[in-house]
Amino acid sequence: MARTDIARRVYNHTWKVDPIIRSLLDTDFYKLLMLQMIWALYPDVDATFSLINRTKKVRLAEVIDEGELREQLDHARTRTLSKKELIWLAGNTFYGRKQIFQPDFIAWLADFQLPDYELARSSDGQYELTFHGKWKETTLWEIPALAIINELRSRAALKAMGPFALDVLYARAKAKTWDKVERLRTLPDLRISDFGTRRRHSFLWQRWCVEALKEGIGEAFTGTSNVLLAMDTDLEALGTNAHELPMVASALTTSDEALKAAPYKVLQDWNTLYGGNLLIVLPDAYGTAAFLRNAPDWVADWTGFRPDSAPPIEGGEKILTWWKEHGRDPREKLLIFSDGLDVDTIIDTYKHFEGRVRMSFGWGTNLTNDFEGCLPVDSDRLDPISLVCKVTEANGRPAVKLSDNPNKATGEPSEIARYIKLFGTEDHAAKAVKV
Amino acid sequence: MARTDIARRVYNHTWKVDPIIRSLLDTDFYKLLMLQMIWALYPDVDATFSLINRTKKVRLAEVIDEGELREQLDHARTRTLSKKELIWLAGNTFYGRKQIFQPDFIAWLADFQLPDYELARSSDGQYELTFHGKWKETTLWEIPALAIINELRSRAALKAMGPFALDVLYARAKAKTWDKVERLRTLPDLRISDFGTRRRHSFLWQRWCVEALKEGIGEAFTGTSNVLLAMDTDLEALGTNAHELPMVASALTTSDEALKAAPYKVLQDWNTLYGGNLLIVLPDAYGTAAFLRNAPDWVADWTGFRPDSAPPIEGGEKILTWWKEHGRDPREKLLIFSDGLDVDTIIDTYKHFEGRVRMSFGWGTNLTNDFEGCLPVDSDRLDPISLVCKVTEANGRPAVKLSDNPNKATGEPSEIARYIKLFGTEDHAAKAVKV
Repeated sequence: MARTDIARRVYNHTWKVDPIIRSLLDTDFYKLLMLQMIWALYPDVDATFSLINRTKKVRLAEVIDEGELREQLDHARTRTLSKKELIWLAGNTFYGRKQIFQPDFIAWLADFQLPDYELARSSDGQYELTFHGKWKETTLWEIPALAIINELRSRAALKAMGPFALDVLYARAKAKTWDKVERLRTLPDLRISDFGTRRRHSFLWQRWCVEALKEGIGEAFTGTSNVLLAMDTDLEALGTNAHELPMVASALTTSDEALKAAPYKVLQDWNTLYGGNLLIVLPDAYGTAAFLRNAPDWVADWTGFRPDSAPPIEGGEKILTWWKEHGRDPREKLLIFSDGLDVDTIIDTYKHFEGRVRMSFGWGTNLTNDFEGCLPVDSDRLDPISLVCKVTEANGRPAVKLSDNPNKATGEPSEIARYIKLFGTEDHAAKAVKV
Repeated sequence: MARTDIARRVYNHTWKVDPIIRSLLDTDFYKLLMLQMIWALYPDVDATFSLINRTKKVRLAEVIDEGELREQLDHARTRTLSKKELIWLAGNTFYGRKQIFQPDFIAWLADFQLPDYELARSSDGQYELTFHGKWKETTLWEIPALAIINELRSRAALKAMGPFALDVLYARAKAKTWDKVERLRTLPDLRISDFGTRRRHSFLWQRWCVEALKEGIGEAFTGTSNVLLAMDTDLEALGTNAHELPMVASALTTSDEALKAAPYKVLQDWNTLYGGNLLIVLPDAYGTAAFLRNAPDWVADWTGFRPDSAPPIEGGEKILTWWKEHGRDPREKLLIFSDGLDVDTIIDTYKHFEGRVRMSFGWGTNLTNDFEGCLPVDSDRLDPISLVCKVTEANGRPAVKLSDNPNKATGEPSEIARYIKLFGTEDHAAKAVKV
């Protein structure tokens, strides 16, 4: 029976927009956890987020149509949380804890819409996309802005391809992903989750990859950072906190002493608000070595660390040494690896630390955007790029990130110099930022 | 928009049968060419066709449900040619020739339906599927019978798999097929066609493979042996004749002399009926060496040979030598390879004969039924089997095939012995029959 659904076909042909952001929950879970803290403790702070494309050779303003970009950003701004979504946020158990979000916060979220954006083109072929406003509003732009740009770039690359070439492309990508699943299956105590929202090829592809892991590695797949996918596929929503907390807290300080103390002050506030399983330290905002050297002893009581810019084995070993120096048994501690992971890194790291520390892997770009070798023609148009959306100003003062990898530093050069003077550069090692 | 087409869903759930044979044209083109000859020259001959599974370890009667098998065979018997199909057969140009089918023959075809079948189970777990009746009716069962059994076996293997595992299975098979396409693209003057109907994984998968070759290697893809796919996808329908012609003609003889002459008599009749591009010799019914030794000189005037059971390079070389001994230039001749081809064999054979003879490849099982390594679990349930449907009797007399490979011989042992005595066994070399 060759039947055409005429109504669907007409609907498809007259679609105004094929939306990339379908819901405000299509974001990383840690953004909501951080948002509640920002809403509670920093309600009046202004924060500017800016798009930064570290892969300069990809001239985004020449690849992505400005009209389409505005259309997607405008569409994301129309989104509000649905009743079902609000009820789920209020009623679901996260990290074993009920009502992690306060009723007042949920009530405030009910009216939330993404604030306005500023879009211009730079002379070097990039988009200057900036979000000004209250931190508690601009912060939620980070993930949708990145997902929109990455997916528009994918769509541009696929535009000229016929249905058959597209079929082969996705067939190859599926086969490739499943080969990874089969390799990961061999690790008996693996704990891995999807952290790939911001760098994904597309929303539908991320969903396929999440379903692949759910089906393929079962219990070893502990969940996804994507709140919408967690809700829709009955997975745990995962994530804790990110660099923007110490970055804003540091930017707001007015003395070097206060700046040095800021990263720990943020952790204390976090502990007051959440505690429990959410006590994960992100140590590399200004370099892991400096962070550990200056850290109060109570930091060693936290559940674990998420080293996010050092090579995983090297970075992990430093933290293990530090725990031991502070009399803690690493086997009771957790390391969450989430920087530039591929199957080889995951397997090597797993085998290296097996039995010595609890581990978890937050798998990003290489899970949700790996189309290497999948295009029928040789092209780099689907290669992922290193695109971030960082807080660049807080209450008019420049925000800075150093990280363990100087190529990941962001901020004004003079301010970066000041931070380097204060935190040092021991252990900093430049490595190419692929994604 | 998550819209479900309720009507389609209900229709799908209440489907009585998911038909494997959708049309009488879902057969190999050479069956129709041979049918016209049988209809014209042997209208009253009886011929019995029998299913033979050479892969004995696969116990088909335990894998395939008898009810489902009968349902599919019965459904095939309901098929008649549609007006569109009859008009296409009458009006299309085949091998550059218009009206290859006579109006009387088309008129007779208009009422054609497949005759009855006999189905029983043998003690060793196989189906005994037999077609008795006029040759001009039973002959058309060969391809649908094989396609039905092969597809029912695929369906049985896939029945326990979830939608996700199926998605991965076909993704891998597509990726695998496309890798083959990319390898074949490197041969500048390749001529290749689909000969994979009888051994296909399924009808829809064959169609995908044919479309893959059409899209992927363009002009190098010269067509398909499947008449329905040729019609639907605007490709050339390809094929000439098969072993059943000399097998029946030989079985009907009453003396050794007549038996020795039968294979050449059939070719003369063929030439009278078709001529032109259809003059392809299939030399191995009773061994290629015997065929060439006894062949009259006019056989060397034919367009080419289709060696079908000897290793392609070895078998081809013998024919080249024979052409030269008869003063013909092989560069003006054509070799069609069609036995157990995979990409490696195709490339090796192509390179071996390049510039010395015209070549064409009829690609079968390895094109339309290669799922090796595609199942998410290790299993041989999708490995192709060596299943044939051969003429076993003509007017009550046993039919025999020897071929160049004793493992491909069919017929009664005493009759095989008689044929061997007459034709010899020089060059016969046993090799495992994979497909």
